[in-house]
Amino acid sequence: MTTLDTPDTPFAVIDADRLDRNAARLREHLRGLGVPLRLHVKTAKSVEVADRVQAGGPITVSTLAEAEHFADAGYRDVLYAVGIDPHKLPRVAALLRRGVTLTVLLDSLAQAEALARFAHEEQIHVPALIEIDCDGHRGGVATADPALVEIGRALGGNLAGVLTHAGESYFAYTAEALHHAAQNERDTAVAAATTLRAAGLSCPVVSVGSTPTAHAATDLKGVTEVRAGNYVFFDLVMAGIGVCGTDDLALSVVVTVIGHRHDKNWIITDGGWMATSRDRGTQAQAVDQGYGLVTDVGGHLIPDLLMTGASQEHGVLSTRDGKPVPELPVGTRLRILPNHACATAAQHDRYHVVRGAHSIEATWTRHRGW
Amino acid sequence: MTTLDTPDTPFAVIDADRLDRNAARLREHLRGLGVPLRLHVKTAKSVEVADRVQAGGPITVSTLAEAEHFADAGYRDVLYAVGIDPHKLPRVAALLRRGVTLTVLLDSLAQAEALARFAHEEQIHVPALIEIDCDGHRGGVATADPALVEIGRALGGNLAGVLTHAGESYFAYTAEALHHAAQNERDTAVAAATTLRAAGLSCPVVSVGSTPTAHAATDLKGVTEVRAGNYVFFDLVMAGIGVCGTDDLALSVVVTVIGHRHDKNWIITDGGWMATSRDRGTQAQAVDQGYGLVTDVGGHLIPDLLMTGASQEHGVLSTRDGKPVPELPVGTRLRILPNHACATAAQHDRYHVVRGAHSIEATWTRHRGW
Repeated sequence: MTTLDTPDTPFAVIDADRLDRNAARLREHLRGLGVPLRLHVKTAKSVEVADRVQAGGPITVSTLAEAEHFADAGYRDVLYAVGIDPHKLPRVAALLRRGVTLTVLLDSLAQAEALARFAHEEQIHVPALIEIDCDGHRGGVATADPALVEIGRALGGNLAGVLTHAGESYFAYTAEALHHAAQNERDTAVAAATTLRAAGLSCPVVSVGSTPTAHAATDLKGVTEVRAGNYVFFDLVMAGIGVCGTDDLALSVVVTVIGHRHDKNWIITDGGWMATSRDRGTQAQAVDQGYGLVTDVGGHLIPDLLMTGASQEHGVLSTRDGKPVPELPVGTRLRILPNHACATAAQHDRYHVVRGAHSIEATWTRHRGW
Repeated sequence: MTTLDTPDTPFAVIDADRLDRNAARLREHLRGLGVPLRLHVKTAKSVEVADRVQAGGPITVSTLAEAEHFADAGYRDVLYAVGIDPHKLPRVAALLRRGVTLTVLLDSLAQAEALARFAHEEQIHVPALIEIDCDGHRGGVATADPALVEIGRALGGNLAGVLTHAGESYFAYTAEALHHAAQNERDTAVAAATTLRAAGLSCPVVSVGSTPTAHAATDLKGVTEVRAGNYVFFDLVMAGIGVCGTDDLALSVVVTVIGHRHDKNWIITDGGWMATSRDRGTQAQAVDQGYGLVTDVGGHLIPDLLMTGASQEHGVLSTRDGKPVPELPVGTRLRILPNHACATAAQHDRYHVVRGAHSIEATWTRHRGW
């Protein structure tokens, strides 16, 4: 029997029970709101994970390489949710010609004109959403900006709708703030769609989402789809804003104790930033979790122990309060719960899958690159 | 002709002229000191890069996967410079039996006894270095610790020597501090070797190194090899401590402008942390370079512009002093100079190689995993 004691460390593990529970939780919530999920696959980048959540269903991707990989696996309704670089349009066209409904995103007249020109020259329909800014987080057009309708007109028949992403909800630390972020995300998207429709343009798609707002939303009237991805794994950042508990975290990294510095109260492991990533997402939160919390190999939290240092292939574990670290001899295996599942997963090419007890029941591959 | 305008962004680029210059600089310096280089391949993880620096020469690796990969490419003298997890000894033995001189590292009696037991049972000689702590950076035994000789004795005929790494030299901000770190690293390693020899033990190898100390060393009497790896690429952290200039940086990431937020004075690119890593190594330095400095596609620095924000596939560029960002239309290609070359390179599976002008003359692969 292959267990979590078998492969050489470090390696990434998925707790399939938690994954299924996380998937079911959002599925039920969105069913209650009457809006379909468009899973964001950028977190796990694994066909096996997507199949488990909603096999063959609509997906969001963060790269064209993901779109191509999931298309190969039979996914036919794909939204590429990063503003389109016109240089990438030939790969978009190739996917469309394979029968994949690939929708792109943009927020400028320059992109819309380039896309319309390309679509015309190639005699192809390239569905495009206009990115709407709802909270100043990143890109997007403001609803009140006259550019919104100009971009819609420039897209012509390629206009498919609007999209917004409440990226600032990752910094919403109360239930009220999360609820407000969700309501604002919905209201902004619906307002943008209304503006386009009032200008005589067609706007079938009204897409919203982020893991925090997808869970906090109570009213999605006028919204046609919700995007979320991180929630399949969750992570310490999500736990820090209260969207999940630490016992919902489905991704961890198994490491081995390789040394001790008793004088410094350190345990040294073979899991450095190459295994966990450099993400320090909880640094800005009320409780800084370092590079992650530590559990035993069975997944039980070891109180007060956290990963406080990382070089490429070394992790340093110490205690938050200076209490002596527990006795963990060389060779002991532990698991690190990550700050940011998307970043930690990206350091690995595969996931070993466990369910409750720690026998490995499957190994799922992860895609990468652009 | 394939140029830096051809592949879809983001992608990693090596400037081969700079790589060759960086390699020659340390080669000449160490030749002057009369000590051979043991290249650390963990930065580039590329056989093509190692071949260029010192084809077939002695190397240092950070994972057994690297050891196996470079062994396949003909490298026969390999030091695995992360404290050995006894669970990994079967892979070490497999390499030794292939004729690779694979040396391992350890700093505890538990590891030494496990290794000696394994070597005895397998009837194999497993060369091991004892890690010596010279600056409190990470692991290692203090020279004065009686454990040093105990570990040496426990290793029996497997004892090959001592190793130290001045990891704190990454925080040495003056020429004097760098020189002191180099001298201390050498002195500590030689003292440990002397202690072992005084106890009647054999200590042929005295291994020291880090990129800063390798360049700052002026006296390496008693040292048998110098390890360095980052210097093939260098990065903004190394520039920040004065070991190189920004025009020595051989690794960069090509990105494309995909949007603007004029109200926030932001340029948005398609290169987020997936392309640059989350490493913020210059944050603790006198000049915080954000996620990196920005050049045009030809490699010329754009004054005052830096990458200040990163989500998974989006980068935010802004100016240090609030000056308006330059006019860079959608579709413009730029290059990001990284904080930490090891971390940025790890995000990519290949390097496009340019020399001076920006035609791509080769594509080199990068290895990963454990």
